[in-house]
Amino acid sequence: MRTVVDPLMRAEAMHGPRTALVCGDVRRSFAEVADRCHRLAGVLDDLGLERGARVAVLAANSAEYAEIYATIPAAGRSVVPLNTRWADAELLYALDDGGVLVLITDREPGALADAVDTVVQLGDDYEGRLAAATPAPYADVEEDEIAGLFYTGGTTGKSKGVMLTHRNLVANTLHSQIMMPLDDSDTYLVVAPMFHAAGSTSLLQCFALGVPQVVVPAFEPNACLDLIEAEGCSMTLAVPTMLAALIEAQSASPRDTSTLRKIAHGASPIAMELLKRAHELFPTAELIHLYGATETAPLVTGLRNEQTLTDSPRGKSAGQPVLGVTVRIDGPAGDQPAGQAGEVLAKGPNIMAGYWNKPEQTAEVLQAGWYRTGDVGYLDDEGFLYLVDRAKDMIISGGENVYCSEVEDVIYRNPKVLEATVFGIPNEQWGEQVHAVIVPRDESLTENELIEFCRESLGGYKVPRSVSFQSDELPKSGPGKVLKRELRAPYWEGHDRGIN
Amino acid sequence: MRTVVDPLMRAEAMHGPRTALVCGDVRRSFAEVADRCHRLAGVLDDLGLERGARVAVLAANSAEYAEIYATIPAAGRSVVPLNTRWADAELLYALDDGGVLVLITDREPGALADAVDTVVQLGDDYEGRLAAATPAPYADVEEDEIAGLFYTGGTTGKSKGVMLTHRNLVANTLHSQIMMPLDDSDTYLVVAPMFHAAGSTSLLQCFALGVPQVVVPAFEPNACLDLIEAEGCSMTLAVPTMLAALIEAQSASPRDTSTLRKIAHGASPIAMELLKRAHELFPTAELIHLYGATETAPLVTGLRNEQTLTDSPRGKSAGQPVLGVTVRIDGPAGDQPAGQAGEVLAKGPNIMAGYWNKPEQTAEVLQAGWYRTGDVGYLDDEGFLYLVDRAKDMIISGGENVYCSEVEDVIYRNPKVLEATVFGIPNEQWGEQVHAVIVPRDESLTENELIEFCRESLGGYKVPRSVSFQSDELPKSGPGKVLKRELRAPYWEGHDRGIN
Repeated sequence: MRTVVDPLMRAEAMHGPRTALVCGDVRRSFAEVADRCHRLAGVLDDLGLERGARVAVLAANSAEYAEIYATIPAAGRSVVPLNTRWADAELLYALDDGGVLVLITDREPGALADAVDTVVQLGDDYEGRLAAATPAPYADVEEDEIAGLFYTGGTTGKSKGVMLTHRNLVANTLHSQIMMPLDDSDTYLVVAPMFHAAGSTSLLQCFALGVPQVVVPAFEPNACLDLIEAEGCSMTLAVPTMLAALIEAQSASPRDTSTLRKIAHGASPIAMELLKRAHELFPTAELIHLYGATETAPLVTGLRNEQTLTDSPRGKSAGQPVLGVTVRIDGPAGDQPAGQAGEVLAKGPNIMAGYWNKPEQTAEVLQAGWYRTGDVGYLDDEGFLYLVDRAKDMIISGGENVYCSEVEDVIYRNPKVLEATVFGIPNEQWGEQVHAVIVPRDESLTENELIEFCRESLGGYKVPRSVSFQSDELPKSGPGKVLKRELRAPYWEGHDRGIN
Repeated sequence: MRTVVDPLMRAEAMHGPRTALVCGDVRRSFAEVADRCHRLAGVLDDLGLERGARVAVLAANSAEYAEIYATIPAAGRSVVPLNTRWADAELLYALDDGGVLVLITDREPGALADAVDTVVQLGDDYEGRLAAATPAPYADVEEDEIAGLFYTGGTTGKSKGVMLTHRNLVANTLHSQIMMPLDDSDTYLVVAPMFHAAGSTSLLQCFALGVPQVVVPAFEPNACLDLIEAEGCSMTLAVPTMLAALIEAQSASPRDTSTLRKIAHGASPIAMELLKRAHELFPTAELIHLYGATETAPLVTGLRNEQTLTDSPRGKSAGQPVLGVTVRIDGPAGDQPAGQAGEVLAKGPNIMAGYWNKPEQTAEVLQAGWYRTGDVGYLDDEGFLYLVDRAKDMIISGGENVYCSEVEDVIYRNPKVLEATVFGIPNEQWGEQVHAVIVPRDESLTENELIEFCRESLGGYKVPRSVSFQSDELPKSGPGKVLKRELRAPYWEGHDRGIN
């Protein structure tokens, strides 16, 4: 198995009559999905798209999203999944930066239509094209070809297109199968957005193993619990905020969730109390903590059977590197010994090829095959990873990474702002929330005014949820760098801030 | 994880105090083994061996064999494991063909000493060199470097060095973990010879997962059962003749083998009756049928939970392709549909780089990344592989491949032979035995005389165990090809000849 074509062909050859995708009223077998995928490959050919051409998808989760996500690379083009929470300005940036020719979307494209050659609208337009197309075989892709560009926030303000190759996606499929084995007795509930690794990481694994995916278009905890009961779901992967909502809903109105065997969570820190509650309410499920990044396609480490470790120090770790990925801790004199913190580096066939058209930013994070995660952590003497801080100036809110500099750049465009800094403060629901500290140039500036100003340029999850104003200059280090840690500290007093 | 260095470093970082290897009185932790491996890397440096230099090992299984097997590639050289059953002529051929500079062996080298620059004898010599060496770091190897040459019989008479890269061995480690997951609660009994894939395939997996390997120097069923009981072994991989012997011994004198969770078998066909007996006598063990070849590093397909399938048609299959390997059936018009037989082809990151210095024979079997196994089979509609014949003229006796042409070439060197042909006939213990049909030029030729003649040039398992003489010319096809099938048929009447 070397390219995305392989899991698709495996599904076609081995799992034809089995259910592949369930979403609302849609229920399709692997054979039906295979026919649709080959038709979609025909549509891409008919559009005259060359090998490697970028095709973006901007849509809520759906059965169609899964086939689009897999077919575009299998047909020799690159898929560009876009964050549905982004503002138009952010979407336009990605479409332009990625040189996207076709946009497949479930919304009215509005200004986005001008940025691409062709818009395909999910629904009648998409279905009509599929019905009219001649099914085409998949391409004879090489494993080092770019399967997709995955836009992620950037430390320098603009988002970056993470280039994941076919080999990267296939490697992660094997790594996931080792960390979280699935077989044809499983049913997978897809709750996280598929534009995010948390929602799509299992996609090829489910195709290859013949596992039905029950796809949730928009996360709503009661609907998810009903689906677990109705479809007998055995596995899901959620971000902690979703898990918290599932726990509340299950507590208020218990459903039969005894088919659940595994609940994985990742993308942001989780409170130990939440884990204990998850185990109480979903006692049949093994809890698995995953750690990774878009750049690592995404799996790096995992902590299995977390429910047995809630009272052990190891329960605070992010687990061991999955077989297939090598982790080291980089200190001032090279590898740090066990127990000593440094930057977490990862190596393996899952590491991205680089950032699209950004050789300098690529060189900063990819060194001799090692990806510098920007996270600070240490390994214990059995290779369990403990994350203690982030080297990157970043907030994780509800599983989404927010780069502070990107928010600061927008705030500084407001003429009423003299100085600004952004950092994360505790939020019970989202883990962290974006907080801005402003030294105004014009004292008429209000919190609402600033928030509305940000909303024009930034996706909702990046917009500050709270703002504090001060007249004193921001505290700075000798070289003029804002001492963010000093400003942030009071908010975090008494909080056990897990980082991962 | 991209090279053999990775599982070794993983063992060092994660499993230090755990038991790594047990063999007779020897019992070493992963930390101790790591120290010995780094010392061995130092020994290789001291010998002045350049990157890629070939180092052969000719020895019975031992704890040292495991460290040698892993260290040579990790230190940037190529390991050449030699078949201990070979005659000197065969060993000399491989040493010469492979350009081997160093031979590590547990026997008096005799004539072999002249074929290499240096002989290292296991025991005092080897231990003395290790003790005197400065531990060296592993090399910064690339994944496409040759990790080893694995000599295997050839259709054209001489054996061929299968070039397996680091990537091949690492891929197989992941594939094995997916097919037969191990964790640190396992203990692995190594019974098959480590020069053969059946004995070594788990080696890197055990290192990476922290699994102790209990190594049996020479297979003896009662000793193996005692070890299973004493060490609490949970997993083993045997060829069917070994499994048959284990069953007999356990039946005669039952040991507590309740720690066994998995018994894998492969390399030659197995009788359904034997499987049923295995399940009766080792009821706690999942039975797993593996299919593969040296050229595929070796795993291609596997049938899990075989003990539940002994009364099902699927029980006769070789199982499904392991996740990571793609199988197709090549017919006259390309891919064969389900149920139609053709040559079995396999593709994946586990497929060999080629045969050492044999571009033509490489081109015959490696085509566009696909390895032509030479086996004939079909897939069912869920991708289960059924093997029905061998395209290669080959006998499998006790798990060893015997190429008929190699034996015929030797027989034809005897001046008393006018015509000869070799094929396999049924043998209860070995599955098949090598049988020769001779048209003598000189009628004084006896069976014993011919067998002794063969023994001078061929390893014991290749020497004909039976010979029949006839005065009539051998039956031939139009172009003069011996009609072997016609001669063989009477011997196989009433036999259900499973092929795999």
